[in-house]
Amino acid sequence: MIKYLVTDPWKIVEEGFKRKHHRSSESIFSIGNGRFGQRANHEEKFTGPSLQGSYVAGVYYPDKTRVGWWKNGYPEYFAKVLNSTNWIGIHVWVDEEEVDFATCITSNFRRELNMKEGFLFRSFDIEMPSGKQVHIEATRFCSMADDETAAIRYSVTPLNFTGMIRFQPYLDGDVKSHDSNYDEKFWEPIHHQATAGEGMVVTRTRKTEFDVATAMKVQLFLKGKEVSPSYHFSSREFFAENNFEKGVNQGETITIYKYVSVVSSLNYDKEKLIDAARKAVARAHQLGFDQMLHLQGKKWEEIWKLADIVIEGDDEAQQAIRFNIFHLNQTYTGEDSRLNIGPKGFTGEKYGGSTYWDTEAYCIPFYMSTKDQRVARQLLTYRFTQLPRAIENAAKLGFTNGAALYPMVTMNGEECHNEWEITFEEIHRNGAIAYAIYNYAKYTGDTTYFSEGGLEVLVGIARFWAQRVHWSEAKKLYVMHGVTGPNEYENNVNNNWYTSYIAVWCMKYCLEVIDFLRKENGALLDEKFVALAFNDNDERLQWQQIIEKMYFGKLEGTEIFLQQDGYMDKVLMKAEELNPAERPINQHWSWDRILRSCFIKQADVLQGIYFFEEDFTASEIKTNFDFYEPMTVHESSLSPCVHAILAAKLGYEEKAYEMYMRTSRLDLDDYNHEAHEGLHITSMAGTWMSIVQGFGGMRVVNDQLEFNPILPSQWEGYSFNVLFRGKVVNVTVDKSGFTTH
Amino acid sequence: MIKYLVTDPWKIVEEGFKRKHHRSSESIFSIGNGRFGQRANHEEKFTGPSLQGSYVAGVYYPDKTRVGWWKNGYPEYFAKVLNSTNWIGIHVWVDEEEVDFATCITSNFRRELNMKEGFLFRSFDIEMPSGKQVHIEATRFCSMADDETAAIRYSVTPLNFTGMIRFQPYLDGDVKSHDSNYDEKFWEPIHHQATAGEGMVVTRTRKTEFDVATAMKVQLFLKGKEVSPSYHFSSREFFAENNFEKGVNQGETITIYKYVSVVSSLNYDKEKLIDAARKAVARAHQLGFDQMLHLQGKKWEEIWKLADIVIEGDDEAQQAIRFNIFHLNQTYTGEDSRLNIGPKGFTGEKYGGSTYWDTEAYCIPFYMSTKDQRVARQLLTYRFTQLPRAIENAAKLGFTNGAALYPMVTMNGEECHNEWEITFEEIHRNGAIAYAIYNYAKYTGDTTYFSEGGLEVLVGIARFWAQRVHWSEAKKLYVMHGVTGPNEYENNVNNNWYTSYIAVWCMKYCLEVIDFLRKENGALLDEKFVALAFNDNDERLQWQQIIEKMYFGKLEGTEIFLQQDGYMDKVLMKAEELNPAERPINQHWSWDRILRSCFIKQADVLQGIYFFEEDFTASEIKTNFDFYEPMTVHESSLSPCVHAILAAKLGYEEKAYEMYMRTSRLDLDDYNHEAHEGLHITSMAGTWMSIVQGFGGMRVVNDQLEFNPILPSQWEGYSFNVLFRGKVVNVTVDKSGFTTH
Repeated sequence: MIKYLVTDPWKIVEEGFKRKHHRSSESIFSIGNGRFGQRANHEEKFTGPSLQGSYVAGVYYPDKTRVGWWKNGYPEYFAKVLNSTNWIGIHVWVDEEEVDFATCITSNFRRELNMKEGFLFRSFDIEMPSGKQVHIEATRFCSMADDETAAIRYSVTPLNFTGMIRFQPYLDGDVKSHDSNYDEKFWEPIHHQATAGEGMVVTRTRKTEFDVATAMKVQLFLKGKEVSPSYHFSSREFFAENNFEKGVNQGETITIYKYVSVVSSLNYDKEKLIDAARKAVARAHQLGFDQMLHLQGKKWEEIWKLADIVIEGDDEAQQAIRFNIFHLNQTYTGEDSRLNIGPKGFTGEKYGGSTYWDTEAYCIPFYMSTKDQRVARQLLTYRFTQLPRAIENAAKLGFTNGAALYPMVTMNGEECHNEWEITFEEIHRNGAIAYAIYNYAKYTGDTTYFSEGGLEVLVGIARFWAQRVHWSEAKKLYVMHGVTGPNEYENNVNNNWYTSYIAVWCMKYCLEVIDFLRKENGALLDEKFVALAFNDNDERLQWQQIIEKMYFGKLEGTEIFLQQDGYMDKVLMKAEELNPAERPINQHWSWDRILRSCFIKQADVLQGIYFFEEDFTASEIKTNFDFYEPMTVHESSLSPCVHAILAAKLGYEEKAYEMYMRTSRLDLDDYNHEAHEGLHITSMAGTWMSIVQGFGGMRVVNDQLEFNPILPSQWEGYSFNVLFRGKVVNVTVDKSGFTTH
Repeated sequence: MIKYLVTDPWKIVEEGFKRKHHRSSESIFSIGNGRFGQRANHEEKFTGPSLQGSYVAGVYYPDKTRVGWWKNGYPEYFAKVLNSTNWIGIHVWVDEEEVDFATCITSNFRRELNMKEGFLFRSFDIEMPSGKQVHIEATRFCSMADDETAAIRYSVTPLNFTGMIRFQPYLDGDVKSHDSNYDEKFWEPIHHQATAGEGMVVTRTRKTEFDVATAMKVQLFLKGKEVSPSYHFSSREFFAENNFEKGVNQGETITIYKYVSVVSSLNYDKEKLIDAARKAVARAHQLGFDQMLHLQGKKWEEIWKLADIVIEGDDEAQQAIRFNIFHLNQTYTGEDSRLNIGPKGFTGEKYGGSTYWDTEAYCIPFYMSTKDQRVARQLLTYRFTQLPRAIENAAKLGFTNGAALYPMVTMNGEECHNEWEITFEEIHRNGAIAYAIYNYAKYTGDTTYFSEGGLEVLVGIARFWAQRVHWSEAKKLYVMHGVTGPNEYENNVNNNWYTSYIAVWCMKYCLEVIDFLRKENGALLDEKFVALAFNDNDERLQWQQIIEKMYFGKLEGTEIFLQQDGYMDKVLMKAEELNPAERPINQHWSWDRILRSCFIKQADVLQGIYFFEEDFTASEIKTNFDFYEPMTVHESSLSPCVHAILAAKLGYEEKAYEMYMRTSRLDLDDYNHEAHEGLHITSMAGTWMSIVQGFGGMRVVNDQLEFNPILPSQWEGYSFNVLFRGKVVNVTVDKSGFTTH
């Protein structure tokens, strides 16, 4: 755990520049608007360690590197999330000296992520080698109101001299990605142009040929009044800049406004892209910074109205939940049905791809309760749209009869992850996609999706499972070999309890939905059966046999569900017995050692118990939690939230609080020493669940919301809203009890 | 099985150009001399599908691509085997038309690999679009007598016209590798030069900075007499050429001789490389083609004298064994202690690296019996030299106390393969390295290696095993989890019988060697113990406990040793029940399906039984062979030979013959549909073992050679030599019995 940030209920604050944590700060202070986003890299020159990151939703590069022994059935490519044109850059000179944040002497540094209004602010004093001192303030945001635009306000005030301040605002498309082989380039230059106060750079991704146009327009203000400097401008491949200076008296402030637009060929014909970028930047310039910032605040006010969670008496917890909600809303707005919730959002490159099972297992509940239900529905439709690809994907692996295997990682429905133990074996993802359909219907009461795509998805998934199990003559039961459960610290295991459980559940649930549709609209169902070539006798019978005869491991004489075959042969020990210097183990141990150990990355058996809570007795839940949680190292961001929810249910209030703090401050306090690579966006939805389903105890029972809150002793109270079937329900909990209205 | 080659006892012959098999032919007809080698690409222009391949021993590129989720402990790079400067190229024009083998009409094509004398020969007629016909003959070889040189003789005879024949012999360093990401380049240009009749290209590998200098010198002969054409020459980055023509009458023959040298910075200071290449090509030119070819024949005569196996009455079998022996000798000559036996030799890029466990498990017996014992000893020393790297490698994975884990793939002792199930888990390779020490001592009687490196290697390996097992409270025995056995169609399994068996054997054998050295030279041993920080009480005791209490799976009520935990839960079926259209399964099934199946890639339990035959009863050997062999798909080249040897021992003569033909003609008949990627060099040593240890039944018993031959019914007889403790022993088997002398 690394603590260097200031606690504040509405802001993330860094006081004094924390040099060695700068890359983590770059992640934590990221801004975005669902369409593009930006790590908190400095505007001015910075020659220190930095992970430059400017990301455009839906834009990726298909890496085709084939190392090792390529497996048959591997996808064509791994989709890299790309660093794209740097649009924040403003080089600054004080007389003849350039400001380099890394080498100049800085003081009074303050960085704030204002989550309430949605902007990033920095202020600091800098002393140049000559001894000249300036005060600098910088504010920037990606507009939520006009998601093709962004704006920066950058002010310089000479503190102990009168002299020339020179600015070079620029766009630089010649960028590197961290995740490249010997700095290979992913972008081609397409267009560059500069005119007085303006610039434009268009670049194209290699292979995928996405075009991204980035435009800028600048204004200069001295002592609050616009001034027209003499603009020198130039452009070259990948690059456009303006360059101008102004004499500034000691104590006066000179301010540059840099308006930016970022548009891509996802949304425009390529030949119209330059025009679109020009128009967008003109819109921003026209509105002006203050009005843009005002609209930004309005947008965030709307979001917070429904999504905010208020915690009394614990600012760390308060700050953290808002941080999570803030980033979720920066990453995915529900505006574009082709987008999804990338694991790092706009805060890093790691993992590639944009869609994981995280969306269904973690994010949908959040969006379902804090947005109009069309957002969650859109996320379901995303998978229906990609069903043909999932069927193709399964066919590549040898499955037939319309069986569907959704990809582990995707940009567009195609699998784009290529580690066999994940791609081919972490198939429980299919279960989560079915579970989301169930969860959506249960929460919203909207059953129309069953006949508008849901059934086809469920049948495809159930067919996959029916083919994925096999009959064991030795056991006289169906078994499922060669899988990787949610606990990725076990690979290629047999009879992973969670995967087998959700597989059986998918078949059961698909039959339930069929029976529901039979009653609702038999004629339509029959049509669908024809289209699906579904035989309701044979397939049903086959599924029922598997449902009845599936093998589930259980430790004899106990209620412990065995995570997988052979688990009890391991050396069983508790995570707390580990040498703290060796944690997180995934940064210290080799993979084989991790695999051989008993240590669990994230909820596995417990993930199943969380999903299907109603299937288990209180004693079973408790027994399994008590057995597995102590061996769990929570090195997946998706782990603590599930444990927080179960712990709250079991009345383990201290554990629930510990897990809540861990999930909510995972990146803020950098539990797993990886915040520098980007934030764990999707697990942030799990943080929200930790409060609402955990402490709040929210469940849907018979089309009604039920709450069963507990109040952590550290808190005075808390309060949240959920949108349920068109109504906003407020839940307020304090030491005297709880109210809903 | 794909049969398109002509059977001949001493040659590989292709009659009529087999266009669709050309890439396979390029592999099969490869030539090499231990220092460099060349696929059978055409000299003249060829615009059809081809895998260009010119390889220089020890030269590689360290690919650092990181796709997917990088595992802690992975090596720094994957060593790619690189296609390097094309030295065979000779463009040919008939008047104004260029000969393109792919588009011109060819007839009377014949390609021969003359294994007796060590050269590649092609002859064919070609008809140009204009109707002009020429006859072409081309002969080339990499000199075994002077392993920095090669020579080509290329003749053209106009058949139906009199006209100009123009040649452009060239060197082209701007080459592609098949195994690259979007055709990335691996070479930098360093030097190029051309003068009349001469050319030189020096290139440097990126990152590793190996320099390779390639030089050429040409001569032209008309009607058998040297002529001096007017040489036009030019060079540019990566490229050098000469260009000249001569009028040739119908029926007359014009011949170009292209002498080539290939030298690398492995053997020369970089600044002396150009000079070395120049001197080497001058040597070749000086000797002349005919004399070089004569010396080549002499060299091969020497090799065959000891290594040849004569088979009477079965030319397919005869051709095949010579093909195997030929390629082994082309790949590794034992001249350079830094080199080893790459899995594809000089015939393809696949797999990367140069040293696998194949060397110890398969190749050493071959070299031990057909070369002076210093060659095998040198291969042992290679590993001793790399012991510090193996200790480092183990330390990276968390092993301590000088435990050594040899790399799965290496160029120089560093691990350079990065698939976790192989790198971290296919650890049985360590066992083979210990076994080779045992095998060498047993065969040669030379025990000096024990005290000259052997002990240190054995202790390092035994220490690794002692730490790699763990105590299972559930079983009350030691178990070994998370391994990949020789059967790579199972990954990350528990208690792989073979791995556990060889692990225990290593500890036992190390103790035996310690006891031997104690008697031989106790003082030296004590010194070594100090250097090794070896505690003969504690470590011995620990090893003995493991030896006594190791878990080995056995199928209840049978003598079947269980390949691994859970094997009997699979759907057990025979390989012959597979759909032939789906074989080899590794080209048709996804990896997970392969892993879940019962199908065995190569000998696994049977590999152990082969190594440690004396430990098992005849009944145990038979039972396990009968159980496992039918489920074995032999999709590793290393599989059929072990089965051939065991089948011969069990008196399964038909099976032994089938397996012999499969191992010996694996590439010639392309059983696994992969000859186009290169040949299976290391398994060729297994082919040799199939005859000598299989049909010949050769064993070393109490320092004596014993033979127990069987004669396949398809053969009239066979005869081979082995070098045993300084003496050549000839074994001749025919229908009347066998003789040794």
